[in-house]
Amino acid sequence: MTRLVTLDEVRGAASRLAGVAFRTPLVPFPRTNLLVKPESLQPTGAFKLRGAYAAISALSPAERQRGVVAHSSGNHGYAVAYAAALLGVKAAIVVPNNAPAVKTDAIVACGAELVLCEPTQEARVAGARQIAEDRGYALIPPFDDARVIAGQGTIGLEIAEDVAKAGITPAAILVPVSGGGLISGIAVAIAALLPETKVIGVEPELAADARDSLRQGAPVAWPAADVARTAADALRVERVSDLTFAHIRELVAGIVTVTEEQLLTAVRRLALEARLVGEPGGAVAVAAALNGIDGIPQASPGRPLIAVLSGGNIAPDVLTRVLSYTG
Amino acid sequence: MTRLVTLDEVRGAASRLAGVAFRTPLVPFPRTNLLVKPESLQPTGAFKLRGAYAAISALSPAERQRGVVAHSSGNHGYAVAYAAALLGVKAAIVVPNNAPAVKTDAIVACGAELVLCEPTQEARVAGARQIAEDRGYALIPPFDDARVIAGQGTIGLEIAEDVAKAGITPAAILVPVSGGGLISGIAVAIAALLPETKVIGVEPELAADARDSLRQGAPVAWPAADVARTAADALRVERVSDLTFAHIRELVAGIVTVTEEQLLTAVRRLALEARLVGEPGGAVAVAAALNGIDGIPQASPGRPLIAVLSGGNIAPDVLTRVLSYTG
Repeated sequence: MTRLVTLDEVRGAASRLAGVAFRTPLVPFPRTNLLVKPESLQPTGAFKLRGAYAAISALSPAERQRGVVAHSSGNHGYAVAYAAALLGVKAAIVVPNNAPAVKTDAIVACGAELVLCEPTQEARVAGARQIAEDRGYALIPPFDDARVIAGQGTIGLEIAEDVAKAGITPAAILVPVSGGGLISGIAVAIAALLPETKVIGVEPELAADARDSLRQGAPVAWPAADVARTAADALRVERVSDLTFAHIRELVAGIVTVTEEQLLTAVRRLALEARLVGEPGGAVAVAAALNGIDGIPQASPGRPLIAVLSGGNIAPDVLTRVLSYTG
Repeated sequence: MTRLVTLDEVRGAASRLAGVAFRTPLVPFPRTNLLVKPESLQPTGAFKLRGAYAAISALSPAERQRGVVAHSSGNHGYAVAYAAALLGVKAAIVVPNNAPAVKTDAIVACGAELVLCEPTQEARVAGARQIAEDRGYALIPPFDDARVIAGQGTIGLEIAEDVAKAGITPAAILVPVSGGGLISGIAVAIAALLPETKVIGVEPELAADARDSLRQGAPVAWPAADVARTAADALRVERVSDLTFAHIRELVAGIVTVTEEQLLTAVRRLALEARLVGEPGGAVAVAAALNGIDGIPQASPGRPLIAVLSGGNIAPDVLTRVLSYTG
C-alpha cells in the first residue's frame, strides 16, 4: 500500500516555509457563510510556492549545487523558479507551448531557463526527465511527490489554526483538484486536526478525471484534447498520480464538478463582491460553494464552508472579459 | 487645544470590533518592498466599518433604541447601515445624488433608509442634522468624531502587532486622506507604538485640501466642483475637520499627492500583480508607494513601506476600463 504523507511531514514543511509563504487569512465572502483562503495573494499568485519551496529546501547541499527542473502548466513552474531563486539554486522549467504569457513571463523574470514543449502531460514529464538525466538536476514534480504534498498541506494547518481561534468548525473545505497535490496535503492536515470537517475536491465538468478516478477506484486519464476545453487552464491535468489518488481515496469525502458558466461567474463575483482576483482554475471551489452544488454540505455561521482560491494569475483580457460576463 | 484621541480609546474600539471587522493581513506587493493593508476585504468593502461600528456600539441603550443617521459619499453610509443592522439599530443614510449605484444599492440591501441630497459636503451635513433633530437619531459622522477615529485607529494597532511579529520596522505607513478620520486614528496608534515609523497622508492632486491645510496651518476647503474632478470618488471631501486637522498637524509627517494616471495605474497593478481589487480613492496610498513620490522614504526589506488600501467598492465598468488602461 502507498505510504501517505504524515502530519509531521506537513509540520516540517511549515517550519521551512515560515517567512517565505504568505500566511493567507480566511476572508469572509460577503453575504454568505463562505470563507475564502486566498492563495492568490502568495507572492507568485498561487499556492504552488508552498510545495515547490518545501521540496527544494529539503534537498541536500550537493543537489542544490547542481540545480532543479520542473514541468508545469504554469503556476508550479513559476513557483519553482521563484523558490529556486530565493534559495540560490539554478532552475530549468518545462512549460507547454500554450501556457498563458502572464505565466511564462514571470518564470523568465526569476532568472530561470524556460523550455517549451507540446501541451500534453507526457511531453512535459518527458522533457523534464531528460533535463534531469542530462544535467543531474533534481526533478521537482508539480504534485507526485511527498515533499510537495507536505508543502501544500501547510494550507490545512493554517486553516485548522484559524478556525480553532475563531471557535468554528467548518462543514467542509472545498479544494480545486488538478494533479491532486493540493487536496492531498490539505486532507492530511484536516483529517488529523479537524475530523468533523469534510474535505471535498472540485473540478471543472470539462476536466473531471479525478471524479471519475474516485468513482472507478483507480486513476483514470482524460484525453489532453478534452481537458484543454476548460477555461481553467491551471486544471488541465489529465490524470492524478498513484500517490495523490491514494490520499484522495483515503482522506477525501468526494469530488464535485462545476460548469464553465459557474466558474467564470465565480471569478466575476470574487472580484466584485469579495474584492479578490482569481484565475478560472483557482476559483472552482468558490464556484461550488456559491452554487450549492450537490454533495456540498449546507453551511451556517457556526459551520461555514471554506473554499481555497488556489491562484490569481489571470491575463488582463481574460479578467476584463469575465467582468463583463453575466452568464 | 483640541483633545486628541488616545491609545486607550483605540484599544477600547478594538475590543468592541473583535469578530466584526475582518482582521486584514499585510499582503506583500510582489517584487517591491511594499506591504498592503487591504481594508477592501472588509465585509463592506472598506475600512469605514471599523469607525461606524465603534461609534454605534458606544451608544447608550436609549440612543440605540431611537436610531442612527449618517451622511457619506458612500462607503461610510454603507458601513453605518451594515453596523446598525448587526446591532439591531434603525438607520437613515444621507448620500450625495452622484454616488455610484454600487454603493447606494448596498446601503438599501442592509435595510437602511436612503436619503439623497445635493453633492456638497454642506448639503450632506445639513440633511443628516435635520434627521437627527426631527427624529432624535444619533448622528454618526464619517470622520469628525472621537469614537469614529478610535475605530479607524484599530488598523494602526493591527499593523503594529504584525510588524512586531515579523521583526520589521516600516519606514512609513501611507494612508489615503479624505476627511482625515482614517489617518488620525492610525497616527494615534503608530505614534504610541511605532515611534520610528512615519505616518504620511496621500491625496489626489485634484483634491489636495488636506495638503494645503497642513501647509497653511489651518483647515482649508476646496470647492466641491474642484474635488469632483478626481476619479477617486471616496476622496471628494472638501475639507478636513478641526478635530482631524489637530491629529494631522500633531502626528502626521506630511501629505503627498498622486496624479489621476498614477492612481488608476495603481488600481490596475493591484489587480494584476497583487490580485487585490481596489477602488480609485482606496488606491492612492499604493500609488504613492509604487511611484516613489517625493516625500516618501526609501524602502528596504527590513524597512518596508506599508500602504492602506482603504476600499474596493468599484463599479464593474470602471474596473474594466482601468484594466485596459495603460497610462
